[in-house]
Amino acid sequence: MDKYVIGVDVGGTSIKLGLISSDGRVVTRSRISTLSHRQSHKRLIDAMVEGIDDLIHTQSLKRSQVIGVGMGLPGPIDSSAGVVKYLPNIPGWKNVPLQSLLEERLKLKVRIDNDVNLIALGEWKYGAGIGCTDLVCVAFGTGVGGGLILNDQLYRGPGFVAGEIGHMIMNDPGASESFPDGYAYFEHYVGHSHLGKMAAEQFGREKMVTQDVFALAEKGDQNAKDFWASVGRRIGLGMVNIVNVLNPQIIIVGGGVSNNFKYFGPALKQEIQEKAMVAHRKMVRVVRAKLDDDAGIYGSLILVKDNI
Amino acid sequence: MDKYVIGVDVGGTSIKLGLISSDGRVVTRSRISTLSHRQSHKRLIDAMVEGIDDLIHTQSLKRSQVIGVGMGLPGPIDSSAGVVKYLPNIPGWKNVPLQSLLEERLKLKVRIDNDVNLIALGEWKYGAGIGCTDLVCVAFGTGVGGGLILNDQLYRGPGFVAGEIGHMIMNDPGASESFPDGYAYFEHYVGHSHLGKMAAEQFGREKMVTQDVFALAEKGDQNAKDFWASVGRRIGLGMVNIVNVLNPQIIIVGGGVSNNFKYFGPALKQEIQEKAMVAHRKMVRVVRAKLDDDAGIYGSLILVKDNI
Repeated sequence: MDKYVIGVDVGGTSIKLGLISSDGRVVTRSRISTLSHRQSHKRLIDAMVEGIDDLIHTQSLKRSQVIGVGMGLPGPIDSSAGVVKYLPNIPGWKNVPLQSLLEERLKLKVRIDNDVNLIALGEWKYGAGIGCTDLVCVAFGTGVGGGLILNDQLYRGPGFVAGEIGHMIMNDPGASESFPDGYAYFEHYVGHSHLGKMAAEQFGREKMVTQDVFALAEKGDQNAKDFWASVGRRIGLGMVNIVNVLNPQIIIVGGGVSNNFKYFGPALKQEIQEKAMVAHRKMVRVVRAKLDDDAGIYGSLILVKDNI
Repeated sequence: MDKYVIGVDVGGTSIKLGLISSDGRVVTRSRISTLSHRQSHKRLIDAMVEGIDDLIHTQSLKRSQVIGVGMGLPGPIDSSAGVVKYLPNIPGWKNVPLQSLLEERLKLKVRIDNDVNLIALGEWKYGAGIGCTDLVCVAFGTGVGGGLILNDQLYRGPGFVAGEIGHMIMNDPGASESFPDGYAYFEHYVGHSHLGKMAAEQFGREKMVTQDVFALAEKGDQNAKDFWASVGRRIGLGMVNIVNVLNPQIIIVGGGVSNNFKYFGPALKQEIQEKAMVAHRKMVRVVRAKLDDDAGIYGSLILVKDNI
């Protein structure tokens, strides 16, 4: 009888669920809205349990076929203790022993971790990073998150908050200023909302999102292509730090903004080739993530298999 | 009969040797000039062998009392294979199998590694980082180097060039520009020579080194104290990146410039408290290195004991 892992990715607006076989085939995916259940962590846990139970029923699974549930959450997670320390964008979560709460309700083994850590695990073992021992996975979306595989293992940091690549300090003109002295975090230069503002200014429109600039570039608009090239150089500047400090074999670029990788990737790579140290830049490859929304599901599989 | 490790630190101008007992007592230190032996790697190896043999004779050691030789060199070292990949500041070294060459000549076990890695190992197990699992050791001198202990082990990187903290990209006014577009490496803002130039300008002298500003601060000169506070803020800016990306428990500040830690340390800590993320800044301590010039000798002891 086939064995499965249930992967759950908890986001600010939706909970994505996936069923993956122990040999790495994604069988099905579903999604429930978080918004109507965010009032308290108890309500959100009810929704998780319901979603997982639904998945089990609709797939006609026996509980004995489920090795465990792997769950990613957007915040610092003590994955050894199974405790959510807090979730910056979902109120009401502080030191919640989610693993044991869910295990009791579901009668299943549960393992939890930070969502970007699961993406990094997934891309490492099943995606763009297969065969690497040292890689950095960067997710460019509203914010900029990072997952680090170092010395052939996930590096979570002693406080479970390593990999905050979006919070490197930059000092460039044009970003919203994070601090009174004018410095700003990397994600304020290359995050979704700043890029939209930058685009609106550059294209003389009242409001714009990165998808609009993507559409223009797809139509062959040279200004749109130039916009993405300049974004690539800016992303590259931040990545030079990562390359020189961590000496990764590969940087995997994911998240919503990475849909534009074909437009910003070349400039990003060029910036690294111009500014990183010789041994570092000769080694590093920069590629787009391969697994898209499934990365977290694959990561759940690894988390559960390695820890149950 | 007591057992010992011989620690050797190869620098651009001198080779420092030390004898350390297996239980961590530094017994003696000596030093030979590198300058007269730099013509070729063969000449420099002759000098190493001579220095080690001298140490053994003057201390009346039997070869059987020497567990091994641990050597740090200023460049990327493949410590598994025992090969010096190259030394940026000492010409004539490219893919030199130093470990086997020395073992044959000395009839002793030899292990080699990057010099800052050995300092990090030493401070971790015998110095300021005792009890930590995740720490960053930064050496501020002519350049700025770094050693990383992550997940309770030394992180060398797949190309043996991780930890190049001095080569993060900054964009601040006043540094020598590393690149045509105006960006510069972190070490060009906080390295020894830039600080000297900055000081000369600020104090209206033709030439100044950091030691002069230290002397002024020691005499109570407020401008000199302000100088170091501004250096501390600048160092802090770079360290915020490291804190947010690596989530270390401790940052250990070493190297020649760290003699001024009492003057720049407070501003450095303040900058981290102002700009790093909450969970990260609550965890991290910033301290001065404890072992000074002996850190590499202690590191040699660990390198040899862990690998022989």
